[in-house]
Amino acid sequence: MKLYDLPASPNARRVRIFVAEKGLDIPKMEVDLSTGYNKTPEYLEKNILGLMPVLELDDGTTISESHAICRYLEEIHPEPPLMGGDARERAHVEMWNRRMEHYLLLPLVSAFVHSHPMWKGIREQVPEYAKVCQNQARAALKWLESSLDGRDYIALDDYSVADITAQCAVLMGKAVEVRPDENHPNINNWWARVSGRPSARV
Amino acid sequence: MKLYDLPASPNARRVRIFVAEKGLDIPKMEVDLSTGYNKTPEYLEKNILGLMPVLELDDGTTISESHAICRYLEEIHPEPPLMGGDARERAHVEMWNRRMEHYLLLPLVSAFVHSHPMWKGIREQVPEYAKVCQNQARAALKWLESSLDGRDYIALDDYSVADITAQCAVLMGKAVEVRPDENHPNINNWWARVSGRPSARV
Repeated sequence: MKLYDLPASPNARRVRIFVAEKGLDIPKMEVDLSTGYNKTPEYLEKNILGLMPVLELDDGTTISESHAICRYLEEIHPEPPLMGGDARERAHVEMWNRRMEHYLLLPLVSAFVHSHPMWKGIREQVPEYAKVCQNQARAALKWLESSLDGRDYIALDDYSVADITAQCAVLMGKAVEVRPDENHPNINNWWARVSGRPSARV
Repeated sequence: MKLYDLPASPNARRVRIFVAEKGLDIPKMEVDLSTGYNKTPEYLEKNILGLMPVLELDDGTTISESHAICRYLEEIHPEPPLMGGDARERAHVEMWNRRMEHYLLLPLVSAFVHSHPMWKGIREQVPEYAKVCQNQARAALKWLESSLDGRDYIALDDYSVADITAQCAVLMGKAVEVRPDENHPNINNWWARVSGRPSARV
C-alpha cells in the first residue's frame, strides 16, 4: 500500500492520525502541488478530482475520500476499533463523524478557502460566505460543548474517528479565528485528552 | 422503529429510497415545520440539531444524519446489499457516495439555500455563493459523465447508495437550474435506469 499525502491538508491529516492509531506503517508519498503532479493524467487516473489523500493498494486499485480510506483500513485492520463495535455503535460513530465533518470541519475549511490570500486566484472567493461559515462553526462549538458534558470522547466511551475529525477541525479553526475558549470547558478538556495522544503528532 | 421524515428534504428522500430498496416498512412521522415541532425540547432530545430525518429505535435510541441511518439499516437488513459486498466494494461505495454528496448534492442544496426566497430570513443568504455552488455542481456533472462511460451504475455493477445520493442531487438540481442535458448522455441513460425503479417514487 502507498498513501498519497498532502501534509497541510486537514483531510489528509484525518487519515494520518487514523493510520497512526491503528499502528500501521504505510509508505507515504507527499504530493508537491507546486509541480502540478496532482493534475497530471497519471495522478488523475488515481483520483479523477486530483485531490489528496489517495490510498493505492498493491494491485494498483486506488481509494480516495479520507473517510473511505479510513473505512477500508478499519475493515482490514479491525484492531483497535475506531468506528464502533456493533451496528448501533457504528451508526452512532457515523452520525457523530458526519456532524463533526459537516457542521464543523467543512465550514472551517470553507471559511479558509473563501477568505485566505493563499487561495486567491485558485478558487473563486466569496468573503461574505467565509463569515457565514465562521458563524456556523461557532454555533457547532456551542452544541458540541453541551454534548460533551460528562463525556471523555465525542461518539463513544472510547476514542473514535469522530474525535479525529473534530481534532482536525479544531486545528483548522485556528487559521480562521474560530477557537474553543473559556466558554468551552468540556471541549478544552477533550482537546487536552486527544491532542496528548501520540497519534496527534503526525 | 419510527422515521421522523420531511417530505421535501433531499436528505430525507435518500433514506426513504434506501428503505424502499430494502423492502422495509418503517412507520413515518412527517414533521410539520410550521408548528416548530423540530425546535421543541422533545425533538431536540432526538436530534440536537433539530433536523430530519431521524430514526428512532424501539428502545428510544435515535440515529440522525441520513447516511448513518442507512448504514444502520444496511447492517440489520443486509439484503439486498446497497453498500457493497466486501471491504474493497464498501470502500468504493463510500468513496462514490461521498463524491456524489460533497461535490454534487451539497453544492446544489447550498445553491438553493443561498438563492431561493423560501430561505430568506431563515438562513443567511449569500447569492454570490449560490453561483459558485452551481458552477461546482456543473463541474461535477462533467466528471460524472466521463466516469459513467460504459457503466450502468455509479459505484458498482449494481445499484448502490451512491446512486441514491446522486438521484437526490439530480432532483435538487432542477430547483437551481443545474440539469444534465444533451452533453450528458451517460448521465441521462443512468437517470432513466434509476428513476424507473419503484423506489424512486417514495
